[in-house]
Amino acid sequence: MKRILLVTAILMANVLTMSAAKKQVIDRIEPTDWYVGLKNPQVQLMVYGKGIRDVASVTTDYPGVVIDSLVRLDSPNYLLVYMNLRDAQPGTMTLNFGKTKVQYQLKQREMSGDKRMGFTNADVLYMLMPDRFAQGANHPTKIKGMRNYVEDRTKPSLRHGGDLNGIREHLDYFKELGVTALWFTPVLENDSPDTKNDFATYHGYATTNYYKVDPRFGSNEDYKRLCDEAHQKGLKIVMDMIFNHSGFEHPWTKDMPTKDWLNTPEWLNEQQSGRDPMTGFTANADGSEPAKSAYLQTSYKLTPVVDPYASEVDLKETVEGWFVPSMPDLNQHNPHLMRYLIQNSIWWIETVGIDGIRMDTYPYAYADAMAQWMKELDDEYPNFNTVGETWVTEPAYTAAWQKDSKLSEKNSYLKTVMDFSFFDKLTQARFEETDGWWKGFNRIYNSFVYDYLYPNPSSVMAFIENHDTDRYLGNGKDTLALKQALALLLTVNRIPQLYYGTEVLMNGTKEKTDGNVRKDFPGGFPGDTHNCFTKEGRTQSEQAMFTWLSRLLHWRQGNDVIIKGKQIQFTPFNGIYVIARQYQGKTALTILNGTSKPATLEVERYAEVIGKTSKAKDILTNRYYDLSKNFDLKPRQSLILEF
Amino acid sequence: MKRILLVTAILMANVLTMSAAKKQVIDRIEPTDWYVGLKNPQVQLMVYGKGIRDVASVTTDYPGVVIDSLVRLDSPNYLLVYMNLRDAQPGTMTLNFGKTKVQYQLKQREMSGDKRMGFTNADVLYMLMPDRFAQGANHPTKIKGMRNYVEDRTKPSLRHGGDLNGIREHLDYFKELGVTALWFTPVLENDSPDTKNDFATYHGYATTNYYKVDPRFGSNEDYKRLCDEAHQKGLKIVMDMIFNHSGFEHPWTKDMPTKDWLNTPEWLNEQQSGRDPMTGFTANADGSEPAKSAYLQTSYKLTPVVDPYASEVDLKETVEGWFVPSMPDLNQHNPHLMRYLIQNSIWWIETVGIDGIRMDTYPYAYADAMAQWMKELDDEYPNFNTVGETWVTEPAYTAAWQKDSKLSEKNSYLKTVMDFSFFDKLTQARFEETDGWWKGFNRIYNSFVYDYLYPNPSSVMAFIENHDTDRYLGNGKDTLALKQALALLLTVNRIPQLYYGTEVLMNGTKEKTDGNVRKDFPGGFPGDTHNCFTKEGRTQSEQAMFTWLSRLLHWRQGNDVIIKGKQIQFTPFNGIYVIARQYQGKTALTILNGTSKPATLEVERYAEVIGKTSKAKDILTNRYYDLSKNFDLKPRQSLILEF
Repeated sequence: MKRILLVTAILMANVLTMSAAKKQVIDRIEPTDWYVGLKNPQVQLMVYGKGIRDVASVTTDYPGVVIDSLVRLDSPNYLLVYMNLRDAQPGTMTLNFGKTKVQYQLKQREMSGDKRMGFTNADVLYMLMPDRFAQGANHPTKIKGMRNYVEDRTKPSLRHGGDLNGIREHLDYFKELGVTALWFTPVLENDSPDTKNDFATYHGYATTNYYKVDPRFGSNEDYKRLCDEAHQKGLKIVMDMIFNHSGFEHPWTKDMPTKDWLNTPEWLNEQQSGRDPMTGFTANADGSEPAKSAYLQTSYKLTPVVDPYASEVDLKETVEGWFVPSMPDLNQHNPHLMRYLIQNSIWWIETVGIDGIRMDTYPYAYADAMAQWMKELDDEYPNFNTVGETWVTEPAYTAAWQKDSKLSEKNSYLKTVMDFSFFDKLTQARFEETDGWWKGFNRIYNSFVYDYLYPNPSSVMAFIENHDTDRYLGNGKDTLALKQALALLLTVNRIPQLYYGTEVLMNGTKEKTDGNVRKDFPGGFPGDTHNCFTKEGRTQSEQAMFTWLSRLLHWRQGNDVIIKGKQIQFTPFNGIYVIARQYQGKTALTILNGTSKPATLEVERYAEVIGKTSKAKDILTNRYYDLSKNFDLKPRQSLILEF
Repeated sequence: MKRILLVTAILMANVLTMSAAKKQVIDRIEPTDWYVGLKNPQVQLMVYGKGIRDVASVTTDYPGVVIDSLVRLDSPNYLLVYMNLRDAQPGTMTLNFGKTKVQYQLKQREMSGDKRMGFTNADVLYMLMPDRFAQGANHPTKIKGMRNYVEDRTKPSLRHGGDLNGIREHLDYFKELGVTALWFTPVLENDSPDTKNDFATYHGYATTNYYKVDPRFGSNEDYKRLCDEAHQKGLKIVMDMIFNHSGFEHPWTKDMPTKDWLNTPEWLNEQQSGRDPMTGFTANADGSEPAKSAYLQTSYKLTPVVDPYASEVDLKETVEGWFVPSMPDLNQHNPHLMRYLIQNSIWWIETVGIDGIRMDTYPYAYADAMAQWMKELDDEYPNFNTVGETWVTEPAYTAAWQKDSKLSEKNSYLKTVMDFSFFDKLTQARFEETDGWWKGFNRIYNSFVYDYLYPNPSSVMAFIENHDTDRYLGNGKDTLALKQALALLLTVNRIPQLYYGTEVLMNGTKEKTDGNVRKDFPGGFPGDTHNCFTKEGRTQSEQAMFTWLSRLLHWRQGNDVIIKGKQIQFTPFNGIYVIARQYQGKTALTILNGTSKPATLEVERYAEVIGKTSKAKDILTNRYYDLSKNFDLKPRQSLILEF
């Protein structure tokens, strides 16, 4: 910090010698507005404008506002203004940048931070991609100023035209299904040239404006309205954010605020015309490989983050390499950048009222910076929740990243991690028989054993598929294995997450294209003849699946056996995997025949959880079973017995 | 304890009404003698003799000895006498069992407990099987009282005639090779009928007398002499013990001291003649399966020991099931049995002076009882060491069993665990190319990452083969992969353990028989024409391997870079796996080409450990390498560069 102040002093000396008559242009200020009453009374304003760095002074006479410091960065076109709002009241203040005056709004918060309740294992998250789910009324057909605006539903990698209003107009559908929270892929502006090379931007993971919803999805107001109406219906909203990287078309890329704003930025300046800045790997015109680039690709290997023996070179590749060439890797060790990102997350909570955050590529960012973010958010919003995308299939790594983990020297403060082990093992087990120690449901059994590594297994998020994986159905429609996976997902000691369309048998694999697992939800778009939003529109098999899952989801809501119950699992026996949940005298038994043959449940083996109970209801069929004697299960049958 | 005392009172009342004239026969007392000056002044005497339980009184007038209590067990043929020796001096005391007098020796200790230094990562353990290593002078040809005494070197499962003197006579061989400690499979009496069904007893894991060396291996005095001479030469001795089970022919099996002395003992009383008590599984005479037995086999599944969701039935199978039908499962939750076992371990330390213990099937015994044992041993011998056989290939399980683990709610106090993950991954990697994240040396890299789970990785024992696994050479003699495995084993942050004969290319797999990986050491037995104990006797390739390994072992001795050095590992790159050890300005680099093609070491990638060093010596060949430029490695080449 001392060094920065010194640089500032030198720059200010220069500024004083300049002519003060020049009219100062200010392009934007971020955050676009801010809130009084936060525990941290300081706010950083990032001011964009040609030559703004060298403005002589920034002043205000708004009561209670103190300008703590100006930070002049490497680029002349940014200025950071740190203000303290401890004694300020809501209102519109005037900021004087030399002779240029700017109005800036200080807003009243809707509620205190501790009132914001995050998602928990009492919830079931429904994940969707806004571009692929549904299009609402008044969807724009052309937007001024976007690099391109092509919607083409025949192209799996181009935009299909779903939007926030499309989600909002189907809130009753989620209620009917029985989920309690929505997580959708990022909706902030991603103004990248997506028609070139069929390059995908619809997923939203390459942000070009952190304070603006992408106009193709709607406006900030549409987002706010979605949140408000969701809350009225008892649904929570989880926002997808990315601190690891920005989009290539963000102004920061072409004009870096500081030399260390991005990690390994060398290749940005490379004059090799043979490379496409969006893909990084295009060959020369003659088809040859261009000369070696300064571009550093992440190794995608997360071991160096936990390895006590990690070499510097390996760790650097992991956290400082770029995820893909079109996503510049942000340097969260720059304190001003990190402040910017932290504020951005607070702003969206305060402004639209999200109930949770899903953080993309969590371990690819610097762990200490991410911990700082989580700590600050936890201090301000103790009941809020964030889930980090922790894509490793080893529970011991994932567990090290959860808040209060004993496996990590420093606390991550990240309450929820994603259980990719469960996903991975379940996917492998899908078409295997449960025999041998390492096949079929034995994989899941073994994966749950590792729960002793987690500080809080109840706060781990599990799923069977998402936008980055094959659909659990693969290219088929066989629901037996799918029902087993869902019965498990929705009864074990986890926060369950579903992926849109599972309830109506949406399938697909990534073999050909990512778009194949991100198909349009039938009935969500103008002209759709097949409409899965209504019973009448669904086929018989879609309706059967919808009913089955909906019954299970509604049974789960508020069910303390699942939310608070003790979990007991039995090693698969006779090919059958049994997990019990017990709470205050109530028991739920999930019983899965992991073989393609009939199998006998030997009830005596489960005496410790069955006790003297003789009658139990399968909540999936409402059929009663006699637990005083052995009974047969059909091939791949799933039961959830309640007693 | 209250209940036991009550029972005792009732029994005593009965005894008082009996004739006191009967002469009391005492078959044996265990421990056979004991030591004064131990931190725990109390000793339990287990007295064997027909009707001894009902003796009226036990008294002594030896100064300083107090008889604390008599414990009369379920069987009339055992009596436990608890004596306190706090104020006793060494000498021979007289114990009066009614009118029967027995002399019992109280001995002086050779040294205080803190003087006993266990093995550490400064050591290299050499594991051998006494029956298969060498036969010493005056080996007996017939021993009175043994159930059988057949030595037949043509039968892989029968005894071959190696003994303790055979080991002692080759101490200089170990010195020449450069190992510093010997661990050999159990040498206590295993008087089981081994000719029947070709049943193996030579391995010693079915004890029938806890205080007596098996006469086929020698006497207790031979064992003591071996330890003494080994110590004189700077070699340590590690004793193999088994608390999980005894041998079927131990007196406890036919006449259980208490009803709960063994776990699940029901089948001992079963009247099914169709079953062989040694194998448990022999079919009826007509070839049919006998009716279902009360025999409970362990599941061999160690997950219930760590699983936070483990069911009682699964945990019971793991820890209370029998390892094999010929090894009755001891109930360490019986406090008197546990006291017996703890004393037994102390007795062997005091009596023959062992430097360490290797505990067989560690997690199959009750964890709390084993922790009690380790805690007491640690209190008495703070510098002693015990390694538990923790045969699971998952580091997270193994790590939970090491002393001070954060992964376990209760401290195990077990300082050293075995790294079966390293063994498993190395075995899988043996013939794989190091490409892709999960193949070849990437497996080892990934396994070491998990070291953050261990409280003390330096005290984890690693190995590449043992008596229960295939030889690393398999059925071949290709030394390239073997040298890579050994270079790794002997330079990483572990306690290394070798298996006898690796140095002279002993090979074999378990496909046909266990004996195939437990072959006789050439030159160890009368009539051997091939003698690997001498340079002259070894073939050229055996000599080459011996020399190579011996150089490496002597280089490792006292080498602080390996013993205390920081470890840094690099993700395999260009197929090459590099591990650095650094200490006080010294570096050792283990460099392994994990491919069957020449590969280039890009030295710049390792700049953080190489620094400005330009010249380094390969300690395996004494050849110098120039580290200022890239150089090529031959297929599967191993280097250990020192600078």
